[in-house]
Amino acid sequence: MIKVGIVGGTGYTGVELLRLLAQHPDVRVTAITSRGDAGTPVASMFPSLRGRVDLAFEDPAAADLKQCDLVFFATPNGIAMQQAPALLEAGVRVIDLAADFRIRDVAEWEKWYGMKHACPEWVARAVYGLPEVYREQVKGAQLIANPGCYPTAVQLGFLPLVKAGLVDCGSLIADAKSGVSGAGRKAETHILFSEAADNFKAYGVPGHRHLPEIRQGLGQMAGAPVGLTFVPHLTPMIRGIHATLYARIGREADFQAAFEACYAAEPFVDVLPAKSHPETRSVRSANVCRIAVHRPQGGDTLVVLSVIDNLVKGAAGQAVQNMNIMFGLDETRGLCQLPLLP
Amino acid sequence: MIKVGIVGGTGYTGVELLRLLAQHPDVRVTAITSRGDAGTPVASMFPSLRGRVDLAFEDPAAADLKQCDLVFFATPNGIAMQQAPALLEAGVRVIDLAADFRIRDVAEWEKWYGMKHACPEWVARAVYGLPEVYREQVKGAQLIANPGCYPTAVQLGFLPLVKAGLVDCGSLIADAKSGVSGAGRKAETHILFSEAADNFKAYGVPGHRHLPEIRQGLGQMAGAPVGLTFVPHLTPMIRGIHATLYARIGREADFQAAFEACYAAEPFVDVLPAKSHPETRSVRSANVCRIAVHRPQGGDTLVVLSVIDNLVKGAAGQAVQNMNIMFGLDETRGLCQLPLLP
Amino acid sequence: MIKVGIVGGTGYTGVELLRLLAQHPDVRVTAITSRGDAGTPVASMFPSLRGRVDLAFEDPAAADLKQCDLVFFATPNGIAMQQAPALLEAGVRVIDLAADFRIRDVAEWEKWYGMKHACPEWVARAVYGLPEVYREQVKGAQLIANPGCYPTAVQLGFLPLVKAGLVDCGSLIADAKSGVSGAGRKAETHILFSEAADNFKAYGVPGHRHLPEIRQGLGQMAGAPVGLTFVPHLTPMIRGIHATLYARIGREADFQAAFEACYAAEPFVDVLPAKSHPETRSVRSANVCRIAVHRPQGGDTLVVLSVIDNLVKGAAGQAVQNMNIMFGLDETRGLCQLPLLP
Amino acid sequence: MIKVGIVGGTGYTGVELLRLLAQHPDVRVTAITSRGDAGTPVASMFPSLRGRVDLAFEDPAAADLKQCDLVFFATPNGIAMQQAPALLEAGVRVIDLAADFRIRDVAEWEKWYGMKHACPEWVARAVYGLPEVYREQVKGAQLIANPGCYPTAVQLGFLPLVKAGLVDCGSLIADAKSGVSGAGRKAETHILFSEAADNFKAYGVPGHRHLPEIRQGLGQMAGAPVGLTFVPHLTPMIRGIHATLYARIGREADFQAAFEACYAAEPFVDVLPAKSHPETRSVRSANVCRIAVHRPQGGDTLVVLSVIDNLVKGAAGQAVQNMNIMFGLDETRGLCQLPLLP
Repeated sequence: MIKVGIVGGTGYTGVELLRLLAQHPDVRVTAITSRGDAGTPVASMFPSLRGRVDLAFEDPAAADLKQCDLVFFATPNGIAMQQAPALLEAGVRVIDLAADFRIRDVAEWEKWYGMKHACPEWVARAVYGLPEVYREQVKGAQLIANPGCYPTAVQLGFLPLVKAGLVDCGSLIADAKSGVSGAGRKAETHILFSEAADNFKAYGVPGHRHLPEIRQGLGQMAGAPVGLTFVPHLTPMIRGIHATLYARIGREADFQAAFEACYAAEPFVDVLPAKSHPETRSVRSANVCRIAVHRPQGGDTLVVLSVIDNLVKGAAGQAVQNMNIMFGLDETRGLCQLPLLP
Repeated sequence: MIKVGIVGGTGYTGVELLRLLAQHPDVRVTAITSRGDAGTPVASMFPSLRGRVDLAFEDPAAADLKQCDLVFFATPNGIAMQQAPALLEAGVRVIDLAADFRIRDVAEWEKWYGMKHACPEWVARAVYGLPEVYREQVKGAQLIANPGCYPTAVQLGFLPLVKAGLVDCGSLIADAKSGVSGAGRKAETHILFSEAADNFKAYGVPGHRHLPEIRQGLGQMAGAPVGLTFVPHLTPMIRGIHATLYARIGREADFQAAFEACYAAEPFVDVLPAKSHPETRSVRSANVCRIAVHRPQGGDTLVVLSVIDNLVKGAAGQAVQNMNIMFGLDETRGLCQLPLLP
Repeated sequence: MIKVGIVGGTGYTGVELLRLLAQHPDVRVTAITSRGDAGTPVASMFPSLRGRVDLAFEDPAAADLKQCDLVFFATPNGIAMQQAPALLEAGVRVIDLAADFRIRDVAEWEKWYGMKHACPEWVARAVYGLPEVYREQVKGAQLIANPGCYPTAVQLGFLPLVKAGLVDCGSLIADAKSGVSGAGRKAETHILFSEAADNFKAYGVPGHRHLPEIRQGLGQMAGAPVGLTFVPHLTPMIRGIHATLYARIGREADFQAAFEACYAAEPFVDVLPAKSHPETRSVRSANVCRIAVHRPQGGDTLVVLSVIDNLVKGAAGQAVQNMNIMFGLDETRGLCQLPLLP
Repeated sequence: MIKVGIVGGTGYTGVELLRLLAQHPDVRVTAITSRGDAGTPVASMFPSLRGRVDLAFEDPAAADLKQCDLVFFATPNGIAMQQAPALLEAGVRVIDLAADFRIRDVAEWEKWYGMKHACPEWVARAVYGLPEVYREQVKGAQLIANPGCYPTAVQLGFLPLVKAGLVDCGSLIADAKSGVSGAGRKAETHILFSEAADNFKAYGVPGHRHLPEIRQGLGQMAGAPVGLTFVPHLTPMIRGIHATLYARIGREADFQAAFEACYAAEPFVDVLPAKSHPETRSVRSANVCRIAVHRPQGGDTLVVLSVIDNLVKGAAGQAVQNMNIMFGLDETRGLCQLPLLP
C-alpha cells in the first residue's frame, strides 16, 4: 500500500482526490491537512464521503507528512513551492496540482503569477505530468507538476497535429469553455449560482495564466515557439471542459488517421469516429479525454473538439494516473470507473 | 458469472443499469434489447460506455433471453407483464424496474395504470424489492417488483416511525421533489431544457401513480391502512429525489435513536446526526439513502428529510442490490462507488 | 415625479428596484448609496443597466437622502433601524425591504435576529406592506416593513382559508422552495454555482427567521395564534418561490370559489382554474402571485400551490406596489411588464 | 394601431413575439394561428400571458389574415414561402422569422434546407432585416427576412472590421454558443433537460444552415466572398448567444474606436469599454447586442465578443424593430424594457 498525504483538502481537487484514492486498491490516505479546518472530520465537510473516509483534517504543522510515500498538494498557487522542498529532501515524492512547477521559465512564471518563486531549483527538476507526452520522464520523477485543466484539453487536442507538423503553428486558436468548478471552491461573487447560472461569458481574454503553460507545451511538441490565441469561457455547468481548436492546415494528410494512430495505445484518450461531436457529460467523473477532428467544408482550417472532466483528467484523475506511473502500477489502476451519464 | 439480459436499454434506467453492471465483478451482460434501435451499438447511443460495453441492441424477438440467469426489464409500464411470464416459466429470474408487479391489488393497479393486467397470477408471486423491509422474501424470489423512486425515498423515511407506531398514520404528508431524469428519456415538451430549467412546479396533485404504491407499503408497515397526502414536484436538476415528510407525533420517543436503531445494520441507509439537512448531491450516483429527522421548535410535528439518487437507490442500484441478494452475493457487491460531489 | 433614494443598492433587491424604478413613469431615482462601492457607476457593476441608469453609488454619509420623497432600504438586516429614523423624522417616507420592522413583538424580533433593536418606537408605527391584507393602512403609512419573500407566498396562499376559518389553524404546514437569489448576493460558499447547481436540500428546519413573520401574519388573519411547521428548501434556479401548503379542512366549502372571491379585485394575485399547477417561471420578473387550490382524492387535507418571483412580488416589486399606494398612484403603475417565459 | 397577425404562435419565437407585442403601445394582435392547437386559448398554453392576452389560437384556414396590416410568420422553415405570397399579393406586409427568404441564391438555399423553394420571385424582393446594415431598405420593404440568431450576433460582431477592410476576410472564425431555446420548442430527445443540462457540446461542425447566411452577409459587407469557419455549440442555459470571433489583422487601426464609431448612432448595439467581457445575461430579455473587441497580447489576431438574447435581438425583438421601421415608428418603440439580471 502506498502511504499518501494530501495538503489542502478542502477544495474541489482535494475532495476529488479523496473520492478517487478512497477507491484505489493500492493506496492508503494517512493524512490530510487544512489550515482553516483542522479538527473537522472530512466527512462532515463532504457528506458524500460518510462511512468511507474516516480522516479528520489536520493542522499542516502537526501532520507527519514525511512518513508518506507520496504527498499531493491540492493547494492554491504558491504553497507547494514553499512546503514541498522539505518533503522532497526527505525523499518523499510530490505531485503538485497547482501551478508552482509547471512553467520552466521562472521569470515567465513570476510575471504571470505575480510572486517570487521560492525554489527555482525544483522547477528545473520537476516533470510536467502529461503522461501522453512525458510518460517516460514521469516514471522516474520525484516531483510532478500536474497540468492545468485547460492545458490538458488543449494540448491533447493539438498534439497529433503539432508534433507531426501538419498545421501552421503560427496562428493556433484555442476557444475553451469550462464548467464553474474550474474556478475552485472559493467564496467569490462572480461564481455564485445566481451570477453564473443561465449565463455565458468569456474571461481573461487579455491574458490567462494557462496561456504560457499551453504555449510552452505546444512549443515543445513543435520544436519551436508557437503563436496561440487562447480564450477561456465560463459555462453554466459544474464539471467539464470543451476545447474547440482551430488550426490552418500546413500539410495534407489523413487527419482522422493521424489522431487514431497517435492515441492508439493510450488508455485515457479516445478518438471518436469522423463527424463526431464529443459531449462533456460523456467523460463526467472519468479520467478520459475524448477527441474529434473535423475539416469543415473541406476547407483549409481544421477544427478539433476535445473534452475532459476538469476535476479528473484535468486535475485529480491525472494526478492519480501520474502516481500509478511513478509507482510502477498499471496506469489505469483505480481509474476505471465509468462516466456518469445522465 | 451471472448471465444477465436487459430488456429496453435505451432509457435512463437502462443506461444506469449498464453503468453499474459493467463494473460489477460477478456479472456478464449477454444481451440487451430495443425494439426501435436494434443493431445500434450501445456505445454509439451512450458514448460514456465507449470501450467498456461492446454490445449492440438486439431485436427483442431475436434475443435469446432464456439462457440468461436473470433478466432486468427497464421498459415502460405494461411490457414486463406481457414478456416476463415466458421467461419466468423457463426458470429465468426477473427484476422489473417498471410498475407492473408493484401493486398487489390488481384492480387498483388497473385503475391507476389504465390497462388490463396481463398476468395477475404473477403479481401474487412477485416480491416487492425494498430490501430494508422485505430482504428475506427477496432471497427466495423469482420475480422482483423493483420499487419506484418516490416510493423508495418516502417509505425509507417513514419506516422507523410507522413500524413502531410513533406517529398518527391517518394524516401523513409526503412533499417530494424529483430531478428531471425521473420523467425518463422520452421526447416530451414539458421536460425540455427550456421548459424545465430555472423553473419549479408541482404536478399530479390530484393523484399520482406512486400514491397507491406508497400507501400499500406504509399500510403493510403499520398493519392498517394509512392516510397519505402525496405531492410530487419537478425540480431543475438531473438526478435526485428529496422527500420532505410530515407526521404528527403519536407517542413520545427518542426519534433520532429510533432512526439510528432501525437502520444500524443497513449498508445503504445512512442516518445523519441530529439537526442535519441531507443534500441530494451527497448521494449522486450512489446506492444510498440519507435521512435526517427533525422536531421543529419541539412541536407536535416531525419532519423527516430523505434523499436518494432516483436512478440508483430509486431504480437501477436497488435492482442490482436485489440481484445480489437473490444470488447470494454480498449485498454491496458492485455498489460501493462513492457519490460524485460536486 | 417622486424623488427616490435607495440605500444599499449592490444586492439583488437593489438592482431589481433599479430595474423597476428606471422604467416607472412617475419616479426619478436621485441617489443610490453603497458603503463599499462609492464612486462606482451603477451600470459598471450591473451592465444590464448600461445606457439607462446614469447614477454612481454614493457614500451613505455624503448622500443627501433627506430631500427625497421616499427612501428604499435594500440593506442587510439591522441597517434600516439605525438610519431610517433620522429620515423619518425629517418627513421622508421609508420602505424597508429588510426585516427590521416586520415583527411587532420586539423581544421576539431580537431573539430571531440576534441583535438589540435600535428603534422599537418605529416598529410600532410601521405598517406591514402586504397590500392584499393591509392596503388601507399602507395608504397612510410613513414607514413600510416590506414583507419577506417566503412570508408573501405563504400568507397569500393561506389567506382565503385562514381568514374565513375554513381550516384547522393548529397544524398548518408550509413546505417552501426558493431559488438561490433569495440568499442574496453575498460571497458565501454554500451558494456557489458548483455547490447549489444540480442539488436540492432543506435548510433551517429547526427554525428560520421567516417563521415568526409568517406566524404573526397568519395569527392576525385568524384572530388567534396558529400552529405552523415551516420548511424552506434551496432549489437550483435563480428566481422563484414555490410554496406548497397543507391544511386540514375545518369546515366544508367550495374552496375554489373561496379563493376566487377573495382575490377577485386584486391586480396582482391570480387564482388558477381548478386542477392547475402554477410554475414559478409563469411569474418570472413579474409582480404576480399565482395560486391553485387542490383537495387530493377528496380527502380531509387541502393543498395550496402558491408561486411568486422572490425578487419581485417577494421584494422589489411589492415595494414599488406599496410606493404606488402610498403616493396615490394607480397600484399597477410601472408594474405591468409581462413575465419572461421561457 | 397596427393590426398584426401571427402565424404559428406555439413556439418560443411566437410566445416571445406575443410578450413584446402585448406591451407595444401601437399594436393590436388580432389573430394568431396554430394548426395543432386551434381553439386553445393562448394563455392556457402560456400562463405567463394570463390576463393580458385574450386570444385563442385559430385554424390557419379560418383566420382572416388579409385584413391585417402586418403578419409575422413564426413557423418552421418552408411554411412562409407557401403562405406568404397570397398575403403579400393582397397588400399585407410580412416578416418571416424563419429562413425562407434569407438566402438570395435560391439554389444554395435549396441545398441547405433540403426542399424546393415555393416562390423564388419573392426571395428577390425580400429585404434582409438586419437594421444596422439594411435600415434604408427595410423602410420600404413589404417582405422582411428576419435574420437568424447566430447570423445576427456574428454579423454585428464582424461588421466594423469587415466593412472597413481591417481584417483578412479569407480566414474568419466564428465560435458561437447558444442557449437551448435556440433549438425551438420541439419534443426532441437531445434537448431534454436531462440531456442538455450540465453538458456542453459542439454540433453541426461539418455544416450548419446559418453558415451560408452569415457568409452572404459578410460577403456583402466585404464586397467579395469571405472565408468563414463557423462552429456552433449548445450551452446549458435557456436564452443567450455568445459569439467569439477571430480575425487576423489586415490593417492597423484603433479597433476600439472603429467599433464605437460604427455603432455610435445605433440604439440597440452597445460597444463596451476596452478589456470588457460581455455576459449573455446582460442582454437577457432585451433587444440589445453588446460587443467588446480585444487584441490579446498585442498580437496579430483580434477577438470580438458579441452577445444577444437569441429570442429577442436574435428573433422576435429584431422583428419588432423591423416592424417599427417599416411603419415609420420610433425604432425603439415597445423595445425599451431593461434586461433581467439576475
